[in-house]
Amino acid sequence: MKPYVLVNTAMSLDGKISTSLRRQTRISSEWDRRRVDFLRASCDAIMVGIGTVLSDNPSLTVKSEELRRKRRDEGKEENPLRVIVDSSLRIPKNAEVLHKGEGKRLIFSTFRAPEERIKELQNFAEVVLVGEERVNLKEAMKELHKREVKRILVEGGGTLIFSLLKEGLVDEICVYIKNIVIGGERAPTLVDGEGFIENFPEFHLSSLLTDENGVLLRWKRR
Amino acid sequence: MKPYVLVNTAMSLDGKISTSLRRQTRISSEWDRRRVDFLRASCDAIMVGIGTVLSDNPSLTVKSEELRRKRRDEGKEENPLRVIVDSSLRIPKNAEVLHKGEGKRLIFSTFRAPEERIKELQNFAEVVLVGEERVNLKEAMKELHKREVKRILVEGGGTLIFSLLKEGLVDEICVYIKNIVIGGERAPTLVDGEGFIENFPEFHLSSLLTDENGVLLRWKRR
Repeated sequence: MKPYVLVNTAMSLDGKISTSLRRQTRISSEWDRRRVDFLRASCDAIMVGIGTVLSDNPSLTVKSEELRRKRRDEGKEENPLRVIVDSSLRIPKNAEVLHKGEGKRLIFSTFRAPEERIKELQNFAEVVLVGEERVNLKEAMKELHKREVKRILVEGGGTLIFSLLKEGLVDEICVYIKNIVIGGERAPTLVDGEGFIENFPEFHLSSLLTDENGVLLRWKRR
Repeated sequence: MKPYVLVNTAMSLDGKISTSLRRQTRISSEWDRRRVDFLRASCDAIMVGIGTVLSDNPSLTVKSEELRRKRRDEGKEENPLRVIVDSSLRIPKNAEVLHKGEGKRLIFSTFRAPEERIKELQNFAEVVLVGEERVNLKEAMKELHKREVKRILVEGGGTLIFSLLKEGLVDEICVYIKNIVIGGERAPTLVDGEGFIENFPEFHLSSLLTDENGVLLRWKRR
């Protein structure tokens, strides 16, 4: 058993999630940011890869006071469990995601994580070791399921998303395509990693919405 | 004055136009291939970069006998002018695009093109030198306009498309997004090159069509 895995991200019309400088780039629209906030509030956990933590330093909190209150009224913490996939435990101890907002944190790492770093980070997060060299994502999903995570939102980056797809763990990809071009052969894309050569994961388009700045596509696993 | 520049390509839902092996990958659908054939037949010229010639070896011909006949009936050649952008004149003399199907060919190159290669290729194509190190695309468009090219279809790859966007020469981007993931940080994307860091080219969504395998988006220059 595993949680329902929903990937959500915004990209330029040429598939880039940031510029080649890998700095945080505002790709989504105002409307889309509200939608993502709603999505965050509706999930049990939010997952990102360490690359995203290092380049964007996101807090991954629910922004709307109303949505946070709604979660509290339902007996939940204000923010969903924040989950970081970090094979060699590179996360800085002052990362926003470890400190901003109420709620638990969980870091998945491997047996090659330095022991003193584990101890240091245990002040802010639960650290769970799954895998030898790289985080075993299937095991990670099992661990999340044990913790009653039924629905998880993956917010990037492209390397984590590729690994999840490779393991067949992605149920849905929700992508807001903004009406701009970023370009760049070194710019990060929605799905990076080594990529597929054959047996491409297939999806079907489940819904489609436009606003004045772009289009939102929801793809579900075929 | 310049021709109307229409970029058309198919990509995976994560923005890749081929796998990381850069071999020709069937990304479009049957319906989309017919649409592209119609688009080719309706243009005065079809342009690709040398990278696409070297990796895919396309002929860029109009496939439908009916569309070719229609062009003949209108007093045109069966295939639009085929245009290759090739700064150092690397195109093999046996490339499909130089031999398959009726119609003229034009190669844009630079003053660093070796003279014996120019002579060799002049057996199959007009060779026009614009620019010192890299093809000056603005000059190239002027040359095409002089030859009565009013509407040009650009079929890739990502490096040429980036250069055209950088020069502000792209009027429309038509992209068929297939319902598969290709992934890969080294896989070619719709827009490669060095990429934009700021002042991202903006478009607006002018139309949107779905079929069972994906969605066709038409973006026009804002």
